[in-house]
Amino acid sequence: MTPEARADRLCEGIVRGNRSDLARGISVVENGEDEAGYLLQHAYRSRLTASVTGLTGAPGVGKSTMVDGLVSLFRQAGLTVGVIAVDPSSPFTGGAILGDRVRMRSHTVDTGVFYRSLASRGHLGGVSRHTGDVIALMNLYGFSEIIVETVGTGQSEVDIMRYADTVVVTLAPGLGDDVQAIKAGILEIGDVFCINKADLPGADKARREIEMMLHLREPGGWSPPVVETVAAGGQGLKDLLLAIESHRQYLSSVNLRDERRKGAYMAVLEEYLRGETVETVLRDSRLDGTLEKILHDLASGITDPRTAARFLVDKYVKESQMSSS
Amino acid sequence: MTPEARADRLCEGIVRGNRSDLARGISVVENGEDEAGYLLQHAYRSRLTASVTGLTGAPGVGKSTMVDGLVSLFRQAGLTVGVIAVDPSSPFTGGAILGDRVRMRSHTVDTGVFYRSLASRGHLGGVSRHTGDVIALMNLYGFSEIIVETVGTGQSEVDIMRYADTVVVTLAPGLGDDVQAIKAGILEIGDVFCINKADLPGADKARREIEMMLHLREPGGWSPPVVETVAAGGQGLKDLLLAIESHRQYLSSVNLRDERRKGAYMAVLEEYLRGETVETVLRDSRLDGTLEKILHDLASGITDPRTAARFLVDKYVKESQMSSS
Repeated sequence: MTPEARADRLCEGIVRGNRSDLARGISVVENGEDEAGYLLQHAYRSRLTASVTGLTGAPGVGKSTMVDGLVSLFRQAGLTVGVIAVDPSSPFTGGAILGDRVRMRSHTVDTGVFYRSLASRGHLGGVSRHTGDVIALMNLYGFSEIIVETVGTGQSEVDIMRYADTVVVTLAPGLGDDVQAIKAGILEIGDVFCINKADLPGADKARREIEMMLHLREPGGWSPPVVETVAAGGQGLKDLLLAIESHRQYLSSVNLRDERRKGAYMAVLEEYLRGETVETVLRDSRLDGTLEKILHDLASGITDPRTAARFLVDKYVKESQMSSS
Repeated sequence: MTPEARADRLCEGIVRGNRSDLARGISVVENGEDEAGYLLQHAYRSRLTASVTGLTGAPGVGKSTMVDGLVSLFRQAGLTVGVIAVDPSSPFTGGAILGDRVRMRSHTVDTGVFYRSLASRGHLGGVSRHTGDVIALMNLYGFSEIIVETVGTGQSEVDIMRYADTVVVTLAPGLGDDVQAIKAGILEIGDVFCINKADLPGADKARREIEMMLHLREPGGWSPPVVETVAAGGQGLKDLLLAIESHRQYLSSVNLRDERRKGAYMAVLEEYLRGETVETVLRDSRLDGTLEKILHDLASGITDPRTAARFLVDKYVKESQMSSS
C-alpha cells in the first residue's frame, strides 16, 4: 500500500471512532512515518469542533489528579474526552511513557476517554508541533473535550498552552519561595487560576499573591477567577469546571474564540515553518558534511553565526527545488 | 554615523574593557538595533577563551545565592566573572529586570564582575539566541569566567544549558513530590549535581534519588559528582568549585571540550537559522496581509499547516533575493 492509501485507511478508521486507529495515527505522527503528512492534511482540514482546555503548573501541584477529576465531570455530563499530557522537559528519557503507565489507573475501561503522553524526542523539539497534530487527530476522532496538560512553566509550556481555548494555571501552597519570577510569566497566560491542595497551610497566601498580581494586569476584558480545589478529595472541581465554562462563554460572547484559535494555528504554523526550513537545513547539511565544517569554522572564529546561517539557507532552502504541495 | 561605524566603536570599547560599552552592546543586541549584526560578527569571530558554567534548577533551590558564592570564589582566585541570568519563563513582564535589581546587593562595587539578566521578549523567543550573543560579547570583553543561570527545567532551559562547558544541576530537599519527570530530563544534562540547602531534612533522600538515577545512565565517560552545599551559609561552595574544575579537566583530558563547544555553536546556529527563515517569513507575510489570510484558512480547514508552510517558504524565502553576507 502507498503511504497515501495507508493514511486514507487510518483516517477512515479514526473518523469511524476506532480507538486503535487513533493510537496508531498518533504514533505515525510522533515517529514521522511516511503517511504522517497525508494523515495530518486530512486531520487539519477537519474543522476543530472540540473545546481545548490547557492545564499547566509546576511539578507537585497535582495536575494529574485535577485532570482525572475534570475527566470524570466531563464524562458525567456525557462528553467524550481526549487528554494529552505533554512533557517538554524530558528530551531524552521518554518520561512520558511513565506518565501513561501512571495514568492507567482511573479511566482505563471507559471508551469515552483517551489518554496520550507526548515527550520531546531530541533537541529539535517537535513536541509542540506534535501537540497541535494530536489535537487535530483527536478532533477528527470526535472528542468533544480535549485537555492538554503540561508540566512546569518554561517557554515550551507557554507555547503549548497557545493551543488551548482556556488555560488553567494551577498552583499549590508551599512550593518554594522564589516563584515570583515564574508567576510573572504564568500570570499572562492564565484564564483561570486554581489553587490545588487548598487544605494545606499557605493557601490564603497563595490566593492573595495571585490576586495581587492579577491587579497588575491591564484592566478590561476577562477577569481570571481564582478557584480553590483539593483534587485528591474531589473538592472544588465543579467550581473549576464552572470557571472554565464561564471563560468559554466569555470568549463566544465577545467573538474572541476565533482570535484565540488563530493564535493556536499560528503556533502550529510556526512549528511547520521550522520543519520546512531549520530542520531541513540541518538535516541536509549534516548529511553532506557541510554542517560539521561550519561548526568547526564557528568554533575557530573563522565565520560567525549570521554569515553561516545565510550561507546554509541559500544553499539548502533557496537553491533546492521549489516544493510542490 | 553608520551602523558599521557605531558597531566598530562599541566593539573597540568592549575590547578595551569599558563596562558601559559592554552594557550598551548587550542592549543593542537585545533590542535588535541596526548595529547588532556587525557587532556580533566581530564578537563571534573572537575565539571563545572564557570558561562557561551553566547552573540550572527549579525555583526555590537557591540558585542566585549559589551564583553569588561561586562569583566570590572566582574573584578570590583573581578571575573576572560575567553572569547571565536567563529567565525564559517570563515572556511578557520582564521579570529579569527584577532579577538585576535583586542582584545589586553583593558585587556592585567590584569591576571584575558583571551581571546581566535576559528575559524572553515575546513568543518568537530569542532569549536563547541572546544568551549565545551575550556570551560572545562577554568573551570579547575578556571575562575569564562566564556563568549562565536559568530558572526551571523546561526545554528552553535545557537549550540554554547547551552553551555551557559544564552544567551544574541544583536541587533542594522538599520541593514537591512529582519531580520524577523533571529529574529524568535534568539528569541527562548535569555534569555536576548539587544539593543546596543540604541542612534541611530530606537532603539524604535527594542524594539517594540522584545517585540511583545516575546509575541508570550509560556507563563510561564522566561520572557526575553529587555535592552538598548550604550556599546561604557559604558551606560546600569550594567543593562545588572543585567539582566544576575536575569536570573541566576531564573535558580537556579526553579532548571533549571542542565537542562540547560544537554543541554550543550548534545551538547558536539553530537560533540564527530560525531568524533567517521562520522569523523572516512571519514578519514579511504579516506585513502584506498574507499571514492573516492563511490563519483564517487554517481555522476554516481550507488549508493545512504543511501546505501553508510550504507556500510561505516558497514565497518569502525562496523567491526573495539571495542574501549576501
